[in-house]
Amino acid sequence: MSEGFRAIGKRLKRPDSGPKLTGHERYVADVSLPGMLHACLVLSDHASATIRDINGSDALASEGVVAVITAADLPEFARDDEPDDRGMFFLAHRRVSFVGQAVAVVLAESSAAAGIAADLVDVTYEPLPLVAGPREARASGAPAVRAAHPDNLTNQAHYQRGDVEQAFREAAIVAERGFHSYAVHQGYLEPRAVVAAADPTGGVTVYTPTQGQFAIRTAVARVLQLPETDVRVQPMTVGGGFGGKFVLLEPLVALVALVCGRPVRLEMTRSQDFVATTPAPEALLQVGLTADSEGTFTALRVDMTFDTGFFSHSPYQQAAIMIGANYRFANLDIISTEALSNRTGAGAYRAPGRTQAAFAIETLVDEIAEQIGVSPIELRLRNVAVAGDELPNGTVWPPLELTRLLKAAREHPLWTAPCGDGEGVGIALGTLVGSVESASATMRLNADGTLSVVVGSIDLTGTTSALTQIAAEVFGTDPSRIRVTTAPSETAPHSGGTGGSKILYTVGNAVIEAARDAREQVLAIAADALEAGIGDLEIDDERVGIRGAPDRALTLEQIHARTVVMGSSHAPVFGRGTVANPYKAPPTTVHIARVQVDLETGQTRVTGYAALQDVGRAINPAEIDGQIHGAVAQGIGWALGEALIYDDDGQLVTGTFMDYALPHAADVPTIDTRLHEYPSEYGPFGVKGVGEMPSVPPAAAIANAIANATGVRLTQLPMTPERIWRALAERDGQPRG
Amino acid sequence: MSEGFRAIGKRLKRPDSGPKLTGHERYVADVSLPGMLHACLVLSDHASATIRDINGSDALASEGVVAVITAADLPEFARDDEPDDRGMFFLAHRRVSFVGQAVAVVLAESSAAAGIAADLVDVTYEPLPLVAGPREARASGAPAVRAAHPDNLTNQAHYQRGDVEQAFREAAIVAERGFHSYAVHQGYLEPRAVVAAADPTGGVTVYTPTQGQFAIRTAVARVLQLPETDVRVQPMTVGGGFGGKFVLLEPLVALVALVCGRPVRLEMTRSQDFVATTPAPEALLQVGLTADSEGTFTALRVDMTFDTGFFSHSPYQQAAIMIGANYRFANLDIISTEALSNRTGAGAYRAPGRTQAAFAIETLVDEIAEQIGVSPIELRLRNVAVAGDELPNGTVWPPLELTRLLKAAREHPLWTAPCGDGEGVGIALGTLVGSVESASATMRLNADGTLSVVVGSIDLTGTTSALTQIAAEVFGTDPSRIRVTTAPSETAPHSGGTGGSKILYTVGNAVIEAARDAREQVLAIAADALEAGIGDLEIDDERVGIRGAPDRALTLEQIHARTVVMGSSHAPVFGRGTVANPYKAPPTTVHIARVQVDLETGQTRVTGYAALQDVGRAINPAEIDGQIHGAVAQGIGWALGEALIYDDDGQLVTGTFMDYALPHAADVPTIDTRLHEYPSEYGPFGVKGVGEMPSVPPAAAIANAIANATGVRLTQLPMTPERIWRALAERDGQPRG
Repeated sequence: MSEGFRAIGKRLKRPDSGPKLTGHERYVADVSLPGMLHACLVLSDHASATIRDINGSDALASEGVVAVITAADLPEFARDDEPDDRGMFFLAHRRVSFVGQAVAVVLAESSAAAGIAADLVDVTYEPLPLVAGPREARASGAPAVRAAHPDNLTNQAHYQRGDVEQAFREAAIVAERGFHSYAVHQGYLEPRAVVAAADPTGGVTVYTPTQGQFAIRTAVARVLQLPETDVRVQPMTVGGGFGGKFVLLEPLVALVALVCGRPVRLEMTRSQDFVATTPAPEALLQVGLTADSEGTFTALRVDMTFDTGFFSHSPYQQAAIMIGANYRFANLDIISTEALSNRTGAGAYRAPGRTQAAFAIETLVDEIAEQIGVSPIELRLRNVAVAGDELPNGTVWPPLELTRLLKAAREHPLWTAPCGDGEGVGIALGTLVGSVESASATMRLNADGTLSVVVGSIDLTGTTSALTQIAAEVFGTDPSRIRVTTAPSETAPHSGGTGGSKILYTVGNAVIEAARDAREQVLAIAADALEAGIGDLEIDDERVGIRGAPDRALTLEQIHARTVVMGSSHAPVFGRGTVANPYKAPPTTVHIARVQVDLETGQTRVTGYAALQDVGRAINPAEIDGQIHGAVAQGIGWALGEALIYDDDGQLVTGTFMDYALPHAADVPTIDTRLHEYPSEYGPFGVKGVGEMPSVPPAAAIANAIANATGVRLTQLPMTPERIWRALAERDGQPRG
Repeated sequence: MSEGFRAIGKRLKRPDSGPKLTGHERYVADVSLPGMLHACLVLSDHASATIRDINGSDALASEGVVAVITAADLPEFARDDEPDDRGMFFLAHRRVSFVGQAVAVVLAESSAAAGIAADLVDVTYEPLPLVAGPREARASGAPAVRAAHPDNLTNQAHYQRGDVEQAFREAAIVAERGFHSYAVHQGYLEPRAVVAAADPTGGVTVYTPTQGQFAIRTAVARVLQLPETDVRVQPMTVGGGFGGKFVLLEPLVALVALVCGRPVRLEMTRSQDFVATTPAPEALLQVGLTADSEGTFTALRVDMTFDTGFFSHSPYQQAAIMIGANYRFANLDIISTEALSNRTGAGAYRAPGRTQAAFAIETLVDEIAEQIGVSPIELRLRNVAVAGDELPNGTVWPPLELTRLLKAAREHPLWTAPCGDGEGVGIALGTLVGSVESASATMRLNADGTLSVVVGSIDLTGTTSALTQIAAEVFGTDPSRIRVTTAPSETAPHSGGTGGSKILYTVGNAVIEAARDAREQVLAIAADALEAGIGDLEIDDERVGIRGAPDRALTLEQIHARTVVMGSSHAPVFGRGTVANPYKAPPTTVHIARVQVDLETGQTRVTGYAALQDVGRAINPAEIDGQIHGAVAQGIGWALGEALIYDDDGQLVTGTFMDYALPHAADVPTIDTRLHEYPSEYGPFGVKGVGEMPSVPPAAAIANAIANATGVRLTQLPMTPERIWRALAERDGQPRG
């Protein structure tokens, strides 16, 4: 792959792998500032209640405690019990609306002291009626979670095309089912944590492992009513994000730091993180799919509901678009509704909404294939979307490569090998439109001829190594001579948040422009010094010389010296890229899962896995492999084990890693990654977004493999052994209650 | 002054004044890193000796001590006893060459423990012959301080023009004297201190209150043999620099941090700083000046020697150029020699070499005026250099404004008021060629419409406020909406070190270019949105609109939103400036000092002071006033009290603030600053360098005032009461030993 390049396509080590593997990496929990206080949140243990009293006297008397802060201690603007925006949510004032809502902050001289004292804060609640989940939210007579939404419905997307009812009436084949996905947690290793310190000039510095520093700055500045130039965000190494590390605790901790006048570090415990953060929401889907006798799909009908907890931030719209996007439907009717409940607010998790949508649609596609007796791949090849097809919302697909990937999958040994008893193979595909955003970058030449590239983007997925390769390729030097750094918000070039699989796609182009600019400046200086035309010059690693005249050259170090010598007439080499990239280049993928189901117990193991993905251009194939490995592992968790289950009182009953079943290493098979390079027109060197894509099909592919192995269709995620065992019993006419 | 501007010429408060005045500013001594060790240097108490033994066992046994590091613990490259460069000087290996040379580093868990243990390190020395100072260095048979320089002479400048001997023979009037200036310390409040920490990736981060972060990075990278991308310099607030805060301890502390594997903080005590850093050197000058009977100068003859200690870094050349630069001489012969001695190496101190040179030449000019009976100002007006005149080294003066300043001084009340008994008034002038260097800067638009300017220069003198004003003026907004930040070396645009009065002159132009660039980008986006021509648009504070149509406008916040909305076709607003400024714009000054001499005791008080300075353009007049106030205060110290005096064994005998007489507030009169604006062609808005200029004339002006008051000429700095008393006695024919 990627031949003819100097740096692109090489398997480069991540610069952060050493520190992370050796335990030397520093995270926000390692930040220690002079005079720093440790904060512990007191969380509501009621899902809906009036606060009658908060008695902090025992906590205050506890050793090492400096203060117990409640909403009464905060300025008026921070006492709103129903703000629209989670970032404006500080401490509960008159009532609580979900288990895990922050009610008070204990500040102490140590983290242990704060934790002990937090348990001593005595909050008196008077329970109120509650909405425990999405079903309850839509039941008639349900209490209103928020006054502004008496029906508990915050948003709805509705996409229609053709006449679905007629198509269903006339369909040769119909597959229709209800699906249910439990909420899942992003499962990052590092619980949420923030450090904030007031600046002596009146501003505030926030240290946070965020996916998007500029969004944090804007949020903190807005809620604290400071100019953005007074808010410094120091992005810290992210110990896992996956969509979960956007604005949450930062405004609260910044405000507490300003109120108490000392730096404050707040680290959530694992349990707090489970109950109080922003998981991927529970979803209920009713999906019907029809086809004619040749297997051409004729209609799609969807009615789905996303729980969004107390804050509107569910992927109801993304799911509505994607569920009808991967195949051609002459007729479709998709309604997707977002419903409030007395739960912590929903958040983003890697390809938000698409995993739930793919689970449903890919299951029904397989059922249709079964009904008409063609292979799942053949049926998909007859129906998959191609460039020019419309998405449900009317936007038109740019080139997308599902057909090529399906043809490749058809030959994959994991697909073609026969299955033994209890063994099955399943396939599922995924698409992602991807986000686009503008971005900037700089490239500077250093005194020793090395080059510094500065960006504002947060590296979650290894973008630093890929940006290094892009910069090296464009400039004409070895990646080892280039260092890419994420500057803090105060000085960084702009970047969008790390989400939507867009960093390499957008910031990569800014780096190209910066490197090209720096290269042109270097060539101009060399042309002057060597008395040559710029067109006759080339950069080869550390030398700038005349093509074909190897003795007439300057090193990059000499070029730099010419710019910084006193009285120089050359400006410092300082390349700048600032670009817009409004064009989308959707990646696509086909996953093949092989499973072994223990037909007695329902216990299921994924025994083989392949992911074929169109990545546009594999800048650093090692990083992409890593992204796919991680996403598939997460997908296996979502498919087989993970669920945030809330009881009727709105209490989370799976709030520890004993109950919340993340996959272990032994649960993840060898994953065969196949990177297909169909370069996009707009991404750097043809790049398409890669990070979220491989999260979309795993649950669907595994469900299809289980059906292939057992003949039963699971419609609920996760597909636990118990559920499989019950489904098998039902198949055998022995339903088990 | 500066009318018609929005921001230029306003008296803006320094952004750092609040934190500094309230004690909230954080300095390098406040940096505390996890696992950090505290270092204390063991300094040589011999000026020249062989090291027979270093016994650290008592120190190691002392409480809290972790290690005692000597040259033997350092890599081979760090054991050179005669490196050319002070930055390559780690720990003495086989011998010591000055009192204060570092022999060992004690590392302990606290600063106190390190200090106690440092006293317990037992070093056995065998004394060697030494060179105690500049006179001894040039004596025949003097031992060689360095093997490479058997005659102890490292550098010499020799400038000649015409026939000086003939001019002296034919001169109507001759004034000739020997002058002597003791070494002086920069007198910064914050002793030298550095923190360094090894990075887990193999690099190092250095926290230092440096005047030039890029020079530190290059030095540390070179000596540690790391690429510059592996060396991070975090410039800390400088607690006074004045030329003294360049590379010194950084390579040593970085190396020790790498060797011991833990972060290390080294803070010098005040006494250590006195003996071991880089003071302005002692100088011996023999100067002769001739004139014809009309008072036109005919020749200048100079032979001067600068002590440079153990490292060649004295301002022998700058002094040689400036002593013959301010007046026209048809004939001149200037020899300036740099001599080694067994003292700590010489360093820069505000206008290096010029103060000593001005003291000599301005004294002789006054003597000639006295001899021919014209006023000192009249004589200067007849002889001062004007544009087109040559400096001793052959470069040609660009426009310089000595004539205009002298004419203004002639009218100044401090000059014209009569003098009482023991009262005198003196005048002296100064020039400075100033340095030029290339520089870069960026300007970014933030979400709330504020603007972030990023530079790499260190603010010593208030350049941040002036750069803010420049950015505001060019962009078209209020300075309160702009924040100028110095980024650390890893991400900063390039800047030269803060020295040579060049930051505003050079970085200011980069900021102009960045602001202009950002402005053009904003206007282009607004033109697109408002469907208007760019030429019809204007920026007024936070609005961008069509001239004459106040309702058709966008706020800067709206402009930003258009660049960062998903799918935007506008790139983020990101202005970049990278400029060369090879042209010099010399500032000039005339100082008037009034003194009251107690004719019984020699006690002298400066009772009035005026400084007239051509600043080109006063961007922030308050800052310039502050620069002049500080420089004059330092000049009074140099004139009347400060001296680093070494005995015959090379021991510093004035190494505390009890012995080293910095001026007190009561010693400094009200200083009348008169800022003249004769804009330069090349500086931003006409700026000329201002920081060093007012350091040049004070000692000379005060000496001339004392002569005016008493009739005696002091030729030695400082002019202590004792020296004045002795001179008065000599005048009265009662010499006092």
